[in-house]
Formats: sequence, C-alpha cells, structure tokens
Amino acid sequence: MADRVTAAVLIIGDEILSGRTQDTNLNFIAKYLGTYGVDLAEARVVGDIKEEIIAALNVLRARYDYVITTGGIGPTHDDITADCVAEAFGVQLYEHPEIIAMMQSRWQGELNAARRRMARIPEGGSLVKNAVQGPPGFQIGNVFVLAGVPMVMRGMMDDVVPRLRTGAVVIAKTVRVEGAGEGVIAEPLAGLAKANPDLSLGSYPFFGPEGYGSNLVVRGRDAARVEATVEALIAALADIGARSITRIEA
Amino acid sequence: MADRVTAAVLIIGDEILSGRTQDTNLNFIAKYLGTYGVDLAEARVVGDIKEEIIAALNVLRARYDYVITTGGIGPTHDDITADCVAEAFGVQLYEHPEIIAMMQSRWQGELNAARRRMARIPEGGSLVKNAVQGPPGFQIGNVFVLAGVPMVMRGMMDDVVPRLRTGAVVIAKTVRVEGAGEGVIAEPLAGLAKANPDLSLGSYPFFGPEGYGSNLVVRGRDAARVEATVEALIAALADIGARSITRIEA
Repeated sequence: MADRVTAAVLIIGDEILSGRTQDTNLNFIAKYLGTYGVDLAEARVVGDIKEEIIAALNVLRARYDYVITTGGIGPTHDDITADCVAEAFGVQLYEHPEIIAMMQSRWQGELNAARRRMARIPEGGSLVKNAVQGPPGFQIGNVFVLAGVPMVMRGMMDDVVPRLRTGAVVIAKTVRVEGAGEGVIAEPLAGLAKANPDLSLGSYPFFGPEGYGSNLVVRGRDAARVEATVEALIAALADIGARSITRIEA
Repeated sequence: MADRVTAAVLIIGDEILSGRTQDTNLNFIAKYLGTYGVDLAEARVVGDIKEEIIAALNVLRARYDYVITTGGIGPTHDDITADCVAEAFGVQLYEHPEIIAMMQSRWQGELNAARRRMARIPEGGSLVKNAVQGPPGFQIGNVFVLAGVPMVMRGMMDDVVPRLRTGAVVIAKTVRVEGAGEGVIAEPLAGLAKANPDLSLGSYPFFGPEGYGSNLVVRGRDAARVEATVEALIAALADIGARSITRIEA
C-alpha cells in the first residue's frame, strides 16, 4: 500500500490522565481523517511534562506522515505545547503579528504577558485558523498543533484537512450476527481474513438484555473486494447455522 | 516523591483508531487508579499489529510500575494480545486448566479451536477474574491484560486493584471562576504554581451560552497544603477582581 497516508494523535494534558476529562478528540479526529483516506495509526496521551511531550512528538513525527496534537495551547503556566514543539524542531518561538493584532482588537489592547503567550508560534510555522474562540493553532512541518477544547479543536480540523495529502478512502461494511457468539464465528472469519490479507476483518461482540452476537466489519480500499468479502462472509455464516444475519449499511 | 506509584494504559484495537469505537476504558481506569493513589502517567493506542503491540508493551512495562492493557483477548483472528504479551516476556502460552474447565462447563464440552484460544495465558501468569462474561484476563509480571468490552473490563479491574502497590491518594479541589478568562487568571495561577512545585495547578476553561470562565484545579497528596493553596488562590482571584468565585467540593 504505497499510497497509504498515516497520522498519529498526541493528546497532551494531565486532565485526561487524571480522569478528570473524558477525551473525545481522538475519536473525532479518527473519523474525520478516515473520510479523507488518512489512517490514524497510533495515539498517545502524555501529561503536561516537557520532556515527555518532546520525546513523544519526535518519535511520532518521524514515524508517521502527520501528527496532530491537542491541548496545552492556552495562556496558563501548564500550557507548554508551543514551547515543546519549538524545542522538538530546534527553533525559537516568536510572537506572530497577526495573532497580536487579533488579540489587540479583541481585548482593546489589554495584552498581558499570559495572553501574549498564546501569540507565540515556532519559526517556520503557519497558522491554523480558529473559527470558534480564541487564538489560532499552528502547523510546523508535519505537525499540527490544535486546541484541547473539543469545540475549538473541531473547528481547527477544517483548516488542517485541506493541507493533508489524502489517501484512498477506506470502505467499511458491517454484518451483524445475532444469537451466534465469537466462538463459532471465529473460524469462518479467520479463513476469510487469511484469504484477503489486504482487507481488515474485525469482530466486535455485544451482549446484554437484548441478546448477544457480534458486529463483523470488513474494511478495505477496494469497494468491489470489500463487497465480495461481505457476501462470502454472509454465506459462511449461513453455513455454520447463524440464525440472524443482517447487513448494516450505515 | 519516592512513594509515587505509576501506571500506563495500552489500548489495543483497530476499532479505536478507525473511530468506530469511542474509548471510555482509559477514563474509567484513570479514575479507578486515582482512588488508590496510583498515577496514570501515560496511555497509548495501537492497532492489532503484533510488532507495535510488543514494542509499546516493552517500553511501558520498563518505564512504569504497572501496565494495564485493554482489548484483543477474544477468540477471533485479530485477538492477538496474549500472543504479543507472551512474546514480549519471552515465554510460551499454555492452556490454563481452570479456563478450559470453565469453558467446558459453559459450552457443554464444545470447545472448538477458536474458544481454546481464549484459554491461553503466558507461562508464569495468573488469572484476573472475570465476574461478568467470558474468560478471565491475566497478569504476568507488572502487566495486566484485560478485555476491551467496557462492562467486562470494569469487572476485571476489581481483581486488579488489590494486587497493586498503592500510593498516597491525590486530593483534587476545584475553584470555579465565572466571568474571568484564562488570560487574566494565568498570572496569579502561575505565581501559586511556582510557589508550590509539589502541587499541580490546572486551568480548564469553559465558554458557551451560559457564560465563560475556568475551573481551576489544585491537586496534591497533602490535604493541608492543597487547602491552603485553594484559599490563597481564592484570595488572589478576588485581588484581580474576578466577580464570581465558587468552590466546587465534588
């Protein structure tokens, strides 16, 4: 898969690791990238610790086509993402005149030291538009630095995606089997997975008051191959006597 | 902090990285560990790829006191966590007689190859009880291997926590400021953070139709120090003219 485009997400913030905040940014970014054929290949969560942010950033930006960070770009002392990104790239931070002008207009010139911190971006970086609230994010090299607040991060993604090299979109089709557990589905599923090494076949079991079964997902970049494999899967499930087999188109 | 006890979470599964599933296990584990004074220090999400699971596992188990993995312990071909853990520890998998007996009783002896896969644990490992559904997880060394289905994972945590060396519990107190943005709060907050390097002071802004402001969180292991810092913070916020300052006890 020479045309595979990969990305990693680096979530920065003590509040995720302490459990104070339930992250939803990873899931949003994963789905958003997926619609453009960019594969989210790894994610990491680190605290507000300079050395750890820099180390994770340097590993991820070397390994994947793109890195998207969330969190740590506000004005407070624990917002150290910009400093870490600059250090990782070996460049200095500078106050971007466009952000300064925007903040001066918003706060009628009351730019204290904390607010000025948010105007800093690394040399060689470019701004990522913030259409929602507060100062912009930025891009340097293959790294995109976004806000942690979900509403703000989501808006920023609209200005990230047009900059990405996009790949062939992955098509996912789901077959829902009820009344048959993974223990009996596993064998036919494994057979199909082995016969189709370029496709990804996954099984996501469910059980509860409404019964049990599994959602079987076939993923791949070739629509015809995915469809053929879904049909083969349905036939194989019928062969093992699965009672209820439903295609989920959504 | 010689008595600091640390843990990492390794989330294993294509479904998290594709965006199909919103992870909630990290947040649950973070909070659960927190109540026992164990600090979640890092988390990673990797796909169902053997080399990546092993590499992440080896880094994390060397760096932290404990590692908790979620996902990939079912019977299907993409459930490769047990294989990866065994390879990381350089040991073989074997069929645990207790799991075999449990499964024989449940399925009246119908133990096909797929189901037998779930009975495998690494040599030297011990079982982690599954009180909810399906086969147990396992522990080997400082690594705990749990299910990915949240309901099952949560039950398993009850059998993990008694095995952990616990630390001094972190006390977190929150002060909610309304009508004052981070830009004006940042300076007094940074002053208090600098004066109390053993405490963690965080700012989590909010804004929306109901107004704007920030939740300021003081975290530390010494209750008296946390309380004194909360009081100093409230005084500092009053000094800068913040209009609405509320302690949130929850």
